[in-house]
Amino acid sequence: MPSIDTASLRTLFDPQSVAIIGASSDPVKIGGRPIDNMKIAGFQGRLIPVNARSKEIQGLPAVPSLRDVDEPVDMAVIVVPQPAVRDAVAACIEKGVQSAIILSSGFAEIDAAGAEEQHRIAAMAREGGLRLIGPNCMGTMNANTGMIATFTNLAGIKPQTGGICIASQSGAFGAHCYTVMRERGYGLNLWATMGNQCDVDFSDCVAYMAQDPNTDVVMGYMEGITDAGKLIEALEIAQKHKKPIVLMKVGTSEVGSAAAASHTASLTGSDAVFDAVLRKYDVYRARTYDEMFDVAYACTAKKFPTKRDLGVITVSGGVGVIMADAAHEKGFELPPLPESTQKRMKAMVPFAGTRNPLDVTAQLVNDPAIMQPMFEALLGDGNYTNAICFMASVGLNPVMMEKLHPAFEAVATQFRDRLITFSALTRYETRLPLEKLGYLVYEDPARAINAMAAMVHFGEAFYGGRVRQEPPALPPNAPKVQPGVQVNEFDAKKMLAAAGVPVVDERIEQSADAAASAAMEIGFPVVMKIVSPDIQHKSEIGGVLLNIGSEAEAAAGFDTLMERGRKAAPAARLEGVLIAPMVQGGVETIIGVQRDPVFGPVVMFGLGGIFVEVLKDVTFRTAPFGLDVAHEMIRSVRGYPMLEGVRGAPPSDVDALAAALAQVSAFAAANADTLESIDLNPVLVRPKGEGCVAVDALIVARSD
Amino acid sequence: MPSIDTASLRTLFDPQSVAIIGASSDPVKIGGRPIDNMKIAGFQGRLIPVNARSKEIQGLPAVPSLRDVDEPVDMAVIVVPQPAVRDAVAACIEKGVQSAIILSSGFAEIDAAGAEEQHRIAAMAREGGLRLIGPNCMGTMNANTGMIATFTNLAGIKPQTGGICIASQSGAFGAHCYTVMRERGYGLNLWATMGNQCDVDFSDCVAYMAQDPNTDVVMGYMEGITDAGKLIEALEIAQKHKKPIVLMKVGTSEVGSAAAASHTASLTGSDAVFDAVLRKYDVYRARTYDEMFDVAYACTAKKFPTKRDLGVITVSGGVGVIMADAAHEKGFELPPLPESTQKRMKAMVPFAGTRNPLDVTAQLVNDPAIMQPMFEALLGDGNYTNAICFMASVGLNPVMMEKLHPAFEAVATQFRDRLITFSALTRYETRLPLEKLGYLVYEDPARAINAMAAMVHFGEAFYGGRVRQEPPALPPNAPKVQPGVQVNEFDAKKMLAAAGVPVVDERIEQSADAAASAAMEIGFPVVMKIVSPDIQHKSEIGGVLLNIGSEAEAAAGFDTLMERGRKAAPAARLEGVLIAPMVQGGVETIIGVQRDPVFGPVVMFGLGGIFVEVLKDVTFRTAPFGLDVAHEMIRSVRGYPMLEGVRGAPPSDVDALAAALAQVSAFAAANADTLESIDLNPVLVRPKGEGCVAVDALIVARSD
Repeated sequence: MPSIDTASLRTLFDPQSVAIIGASSDPVKIGGRPIDNMKIAGFQGRLIPVNARSKEIQGLPAVPSLRDVDEPVDMAVIVVPQPAVRDAVAACIEKGVQSAIILSSGFAEIDAAGAEEQHRIAAMAREGGLRLIGPNCMGTMNANTGMIATFTNLAGIKPQTGGICIASQSGAFGAHCYTVMRERGYGLNLWATMGNQCDVDFSDCVAYMAQDPNTDVVMGYMEGITDAGKLIEALEIAQKHKKPIVLMKVGTSEVGSAAAASHTASLTGSDAVFDAVLRKYDVYRARTYDEMFDVAYACTAKKFPTKRDLGVITVSGGVGVIMADAAHEKGFELPPLPESTQKRMKAMVPFAGTRNPLDVTAQLVNDPAIMQPMFEALLGDGNYTNAICFMASVGLNPVMMEKLHPAFEAVATQFRDRLITFSALTRYETRLPLEKLGYLVYEDPARAINAMAAMVHFGEAFYGGRVRQEPPALPPNAPKVQPGVQVNEFDAKKMLAAAGVPVVDERIEQSADAAASAAMEIGFPVVMKIVSPDIQHKSEIGGVLLNIGSEAEAAAGFDTLMERGRKAAPAARLEGVLIAPMVQGGVETIIGVQRDPVFGPVVMFGLGGIFVEVLKDVTFRTAPFGLDVAHEMIRSVRGYPMLEGVRGAPPSDVDALAAALAQVSAFAAANADTLESIDLNPVLVRPKGEGCVAVDALIVARSD
Repeated sequence: MPSIDTASLRTLFDPQSVAIIGASSDPVKIGGRPIDNMKIAGFQGRLIPVNARSKEIQGLPAVPSLRDVDEPVDMAVIVVPQPAVRDAVAACIEKGVQSAIILSSGFAEIDAAGAEEQHRIAAMAREGGLRLIGPNCMGTMNANTGMIATFTNLAGIKPQTGGICIASQSGAFGAHCYTVMRERGYGLNLWATMGNQCDVDFSDCVAYMAQDPNTDVVMGYMEGITDAGKLIEALEIAQKHKKPIVLMKVGTSEVGSAAAASHTASLTGSDAVFDAVLRKYDVYRARTYDEMFDVAYACTAKKFPTKRDLGVITVSGGVGVIMADAAHEKGFELPPLPESTQKRMKAMVPFAGTRNPLDVTAQLVNDPAIMQPMFEALLGDGNYTNAICFMASVGLNPVMMEKLHPAFEAVATQFRDRLITFSALTRYETRLPLEKLGYLVYEDPARAINAMAAMVHFGEAFYGGRVRQEPPALPPNAPKVQPGVQVNEFDAKKMLAAAGVPVVDERIEQSADAAASAAMEIGFPVVMKIVSPDIQHKSEIGGVLLNIGSEAEAAAGFDTLMERGRKAAPAARLEGVLIAPMVQGGVETIIGVQRDPVFGPVVMFGLGGIFVEVLKDVTFRTAPFGLDVAHEMIRSVRGYPMLEGVRGAPPSDVDALAAALAQVSAFAAANADTLESIDLNPVLVRPKGEGCVAVDALIVARSD
């Protein structure tokens, strides 16, 4: 059952009529600003100021209460003081209003009493079928309809419309983003801030925005998340609609904060888990706000290439090299132009660099006519999916830009499917004609290339033909982890083996004969250990025998071990002798599972030894996942070459390792409610075709 | 003897009189633009157009030739066609002109004939005492005097003066940088582009700029370097004057391009060597041009802190967290404000975050009076050396900024020594008053913090009290590497040992008795090997004996090995038996040296095994260096924790390792002319106090 009902959120973003409960005549007051904003933005719906003391507010007829409105009201903006909010919400329910934005503060952000009042209001609204956003928020906007239900200062300027949505948990940051967009001239679709999230939360807004046909991209700012299921649902909706999400997630989240003592936990950290979730859903995580805007803006071109090639055309050879360096760093290839094209270009501009970058040189300024044939050659003959054109300061020269416009238009028309950025100093007037042709314009070429790499990231995710593989099935009778029941090492291995995870084949036997035949079945050499809950340090009493090579040795070994056990600890309970294969060689890896309080079981993979201990070279994904994700995880660690074979070692059985990893994820997911952690360390990966095997295993059940 | 003579470069940047040879009446032509530019910029010196056919050029009296000038000429700008350049240069020499800029092209950038002509002209100038910049360059500027000897288009605007210098090998990029500075409103001191560098090169210009008292920072763009000595000299001049250098170095340089076959070489790569040189001289290497400008601009505040703390004040809690994340990433600490201060702040703004970040909240908009006490509390009570103030969109509001100005002024006056950045959307008008107070203004807080980290980098280098340690001395009779003489492994170890590098104590003996006493002296256990230039694979014939534990065993071992040698290869020359200690345990490291064709011997350090082979986890420095640099190198590799001790291992003898590293650098530097490479692999580092030892050593001499 989905927990996000986007239909019920419609009136928060697209109401036909909006009541302002607590409307003020002063356009700069919190109760006056939304009205002023909607007037500035030309809101086409009905705007109904509710104020008990005025008949007219900012030129609009006001009503003393919602009851006095003679037609249905879609949405209410509540700006009354905290103690009056509950009544306002009740009035909304009574009137059949569909949703309300509570801008008022004084709730959970203040104290327990405030939290209680907020909780009461939320319950009331839920029962009355009213969706609520806030309290203590900055409201919502719809740039297309001029519905600006916020006290953010628009500075007298109507928002520019476009395909970018903003969802921000922080009102102040949301308002700042709005202004940054305006300053950069980027077009807005929807905008929302959620404040205390008593009902509608970040995930709801992201989901609504993602399914809106006018949306090109959702830009999100998060500080923390409490309902992981809803977030994942929202990300799945975005994925389904192929809508890119660009996110800034800051600070220490609540997720994964339980500082569990196990090895895996100490490496998990909450941010790593969050990162794993974002990666799974192809969200682009921006590290700075410049990057967030750069990437969101790029999405508005609606071109998401699946190829990572790049054609470069430049007026400066030096910047050509800068761009080649930056592109290389972002994984782009710069294949050279065909020889024949290069010859043709040289004939046109003798000093031109013609390989790729194609350097048109300062000759462009003397002879703008060379732009079109050269730019066409780049995209036509070079056939690059992605291209960047560096124009230095030419973008500041309107006369030059006008002269070059036909060339830019011809290229844009002929190569509509290509992702092309311009890097140049520009003014809004010189930038706009380029953007209208479908080009993206950046000043710094490195930022343009970074944004292009992000577009390929989305392209590969949405259009790369990738079909996520299903997690593997568990065997029909796979054991279940029981809550509160301690699992010993031996049983942990048995459980994992029964769940289809390759673990060493161990037996416990009670007689010399049985030990000998067990050893035979396992295959020599074997290792034998005394089994007793009362003997902690087995090797100290000689309770471990290595490298047993025959049936006879195994039988004798049994007797030796039992005797040493009895001698060393006469009172000890001897449960028998454990027989296991001597596992040697292979590459040491680790597979771990740690329950995250928000996202459930999270699977960790890393190479063993120094890779995990010194270099913290590990990766995470939420469980379960299929073989494809398992392979992605394995390839993503820095130490991956170890598995490909170094120093003459043969390549390891990565397929078997991926299968084990996916299988563990399936087992973890099936036991999500009862499992605290799993630790398979080491998992030895043998040469290709010879499989992998977990040598030691720990399972910790949840205590409750 | 220094190769950079900055005094002789003065007239290129600060001439009293400038002749334009090939002056044109058309202000947009290459011969006309410099005159037009100097008129726009109000050049105060004498400007002398030289043109055989006109009496007047752009309103100035022209002369037919240099001979006709009635007073001395400091500098000439040569813009005549290529075939006439030589005569122009000759005329300059005859007239006693001190320097000339050749803007004309058609020289080494074209073909061999052009290169030859360029060479001839350079030789002529050198002999005649004339300094030359170019040919094929864009010239120089001095923003203070209006001396704009370039055909760059100033777009009618006089350059804004300030402390930033630009030195660019690429003319197009230099011109673009000039325009970016103008667009950002940054102030220029000197500007130079070098073109073909027939005389004055990049290093000369950097050195001149660094010693100029008006310079705050030198921003450089390099594509390659041929004279390493001059570059290092320039960087030393900058270091001496405590002038920061911010550099973009792009593409594949010539340095280190000799693809030597040795292990070290394959990891060196030219860029790594260059990076090592820059690191040594505290140059800040910018990766994008945004970063180059951000950091250069920050230098103009002339505050270079030596502490890495940060106080944060913000109008948005969300952005506070973004800043804390970004600061953490750049190594800043955010100590909390004193408890008493926090209480005082809470009393002022109840919902304020008061720890650090100090969140003044949107309350600032209602009550601008809170700014001063809160900002003062941050810097006074918090006593931070570095601070950032995030003002969101407040910077766009001139009324608000005026209201807040007294607070900003009070803080700037009281805390003159602090490095304080503003992060806000601003206009030039709202930014300027802040900059006049000494604040630095950035839009993106992450970029502000990155620039502040760069200032601390310079602070630590210039004012951190660091005194670079001298490289260690070599023993008086340290051996020399002879050119073209092959050094075998045994001799390589002997040479290094004699040079003070700890290597295994090996002997070659010719009798059983001598072998036995050698083994005694070395200490048991030892390893013994047959020595013969004719036996390649010693172990295959049983020519290696491990773990020899006594004198008797050693004597017997000698006989066994000689017998096996004679039996396996009757014709082989047997030179004796090698006796060496069985070195076991310790952390495996590698020390390498590789001659770089430009920078000479470069020392590599890395941990052994997978660290170097899989992770390429190595670092480089040019030789020689002292213990401090050696310690820096060791600490800088990712695998450093291995030397601190992991998995219960004791800490390693890092002091001994550093001493060995510095000693190798001294040996390499002393043999710079004859040495191709050294490879010490492995160097085993034993627990603290037990030293380190190179087990294998290779020395390759240069063949010429």
